[in-house]
Amino acid sequence: MKIPYIINFEEWRAGFEFYYPVKVRFSETDLFGHLNNTVPFIYFEQARIEFLKHLGFMQTWLDPSNESIPVVANLQCDFLKQVFFDQELRVYVKAESVGNSSVDIHYLGTDADGQSVFCGRGTMVQMTKATGKGKPWTDEQKDLFLHPAVKIDG
Amino acid sequence: MKIPYIINFEEWRAGFEFYYPVKVRFSETDLFGHLNNTVPFIYFEQARIEFLKHLGFMQTWLDPSNESIPVVANLQCDFLKQVFFDQELRVYVKAESVGNSSVDIHYLGTDADGQSVFCGRGTMVQMTKATGKGKPWTDEQKDLFLHPAVKIDG
Amino acid sequence: MKIPYIINFEEWRAGFEFYYPVKVRFSETDLFGHLNNTVPFIYFEQARIEFLKHLGFMQTWLDPSNESIPVVANLQCDFLKQVFFDQELRVYVKAESVGNSSVDIHYLGTDADGQSVFCGRGTMVQMTKATGKGKPWTDEQKDLFLHPAVKIDG
Amino acid sequence: MKIPYIINFEEWRAGFEFYYPVKVRFSETDLFGHLNNTVPFIYFEQARIEFLKHLGFMQTWLDPSNESIPVVANLQCDFLKQVFFDQELRVYVKAESVGNSSVDIHYLGTDADGQSVFCGRGTMVQMTKATGKGKPWTDEQKDLFLHPAVKIDG
Repeated sequence: MKIPYIINFEEWRAGFEFYYPVKVRFSETDLFGHLNNTVPFIYFEQARIEFLKHLGFMQTWLDPSNESIPVVANLQCDFLKQVFFDQELRVYVKAESVGNSSVDIHYLGTDADGQSVFCGRGTMVQMTKATGKGKPWTDEQKDLFLHPAVKIDG
Repeated sequence: MKIPYIINFEEWRAGFEFYYPVKVRFSETDLFGHLNNTVPFIYFEQARIEFLKHLGFMQTWLDPSNESIPVVANLQCDFLKQVFFDQELRVYVKAESVGNSSVDIHYLGTDADGQSVFCGRGTMVQMTKATGKGKPWTDEQKDLFLHPAVKIDG
Repeated sequence: MKIPYIINFEEWRAGFEFYYPVKVRFSETDLFGHLNNTVPFIYFEQARIEFLKHLGFMQTWLDPSNESIPVVANLQCDFLKQVFFDQELRVYVKAESVGNSSVDIHYLGTDADGQSVFCGRGTMVQMTKATGKGKPWTDEQKDLFLHPAVKIDG
Repeated sequence: MKIPYIINFEEWRAGFEFYYPVKVRFSETDLFGHLNNTVPFIYFEQARIEFLKHLGFMQTWLDPSNESIPVVANLQCDFLKQVFFDQELRVYVKAESVGNSSVDIHYLGTDADGQSVFCGRGTMVQMTKATGKGKPWTDEQKDLFLHPAVKIDG
């Protein structure tokens, strides 16, 4: 297992606190009997949005009168263990690093035994709707990403 | 096979002309190895929209400045034959009857051998955005639904 | 609101006890800003499976060595109220009536205020894998469908 | 635009020949009005499978008596341009490099004007079902990946 965005897996894993619970739907399996490999990205989105709501970002972005929206610039997932119908997973989320108007969000899916089943990351950018350009974070926002008030259960 | 919205299946089937072709995606199968039963509704939507574009309705509804949008009031599907990964289907669509501001749209899915694999129907209403009430069809629109210029391939 | 499978809405609604909670995902909305109309069928499947697990049916059907599987013969949904991103819904399920080898399963989605947002039904058949024919329920199974031990939360 | 798996975008892009056409479904949009960012992974899967069928691999893997199946080890996507409802896209696929029992598959989505709208990659491994270990490619298979007989339309 060599994952380009993780230097030390145990340290990386220890950095997560926030998670959102999901249960694998029947419609999310495929004829090989596993969770279809496109579905973790749906879980990532759901967990990311819960994380952003928890931090207070999402409420602003969903307001149509607001001038900026979050844009996902890239996404990736590494599949570590097969996942099956009806498994209860935790999808952990954290901001790994914060740029000028972007944030590198990392993800970890774990099963009921705490085993890592998939992990991933993606860059999200705060974009000004009118110009299509990045809108810089305030210092307060940067700080929020890196030091979220912990809430264990999504 | 007793389908409440079909009196004579052969006659009913003969009334279709417009269809949209789909191919069953791997991600649309489930662990029982079949097309998951939620997916025909996605095919219905796709075929309905192509039908509405063909009739010239969709272009207006997608224009944000337009005062009305189509609203699906109900949907139903009867599963006649198991469908598998990679099958090429035709999803036929027709307006079965037209009300004041609604239309009863019927659907038929057929496989490569022309066998019927699923059928369905649903009421669609033209709604005025501002009031949430039905917006009556013009006579021209009613006529269009019941006598579409035929285009065999979606 | 005229729904063919419901005679008295209030009585019908009072017959539900079991429900499964869902939260509308971002990926389940569409460009009209609502829950896409194909998604309640995914919720129905999830709630139905939880109900069948609760009754003890599902465990048998998921065992590959078992001779029978559940097959959905038809499904329908009536959309009563627009549903939006992030809404928390309850999807109620009950067996409305039981046939020889089939069961008529009814569904009701409610929002946080207890308002009905969609309802539906579908026939499910217990099928013998080898023959593709219906496998009759035992009297005990019929009784179970109509008098489930109540569990409020899915 | 800095994409870690692409050194020279124009050269990289010129290496594609096989593509599969897709049209953006209404149900694949989200409330921001764009193609939801989880959907390109569905397109990747569909295009990859068509590519593998074209090469003759898929037929073997779908045979239940066969001892090996393809497993997706990781997937990633870079979103280059917003994609909207009803756009007709081409999803190009190629094998960028071949390992012992794995292959690095690259993807490119283009719009009707030939503009690149998303790109991606993922490692796929040929796994022996019984052991869960990688099953090496034959030399013939490796050659096939890197020099597919061209077929322009999927």
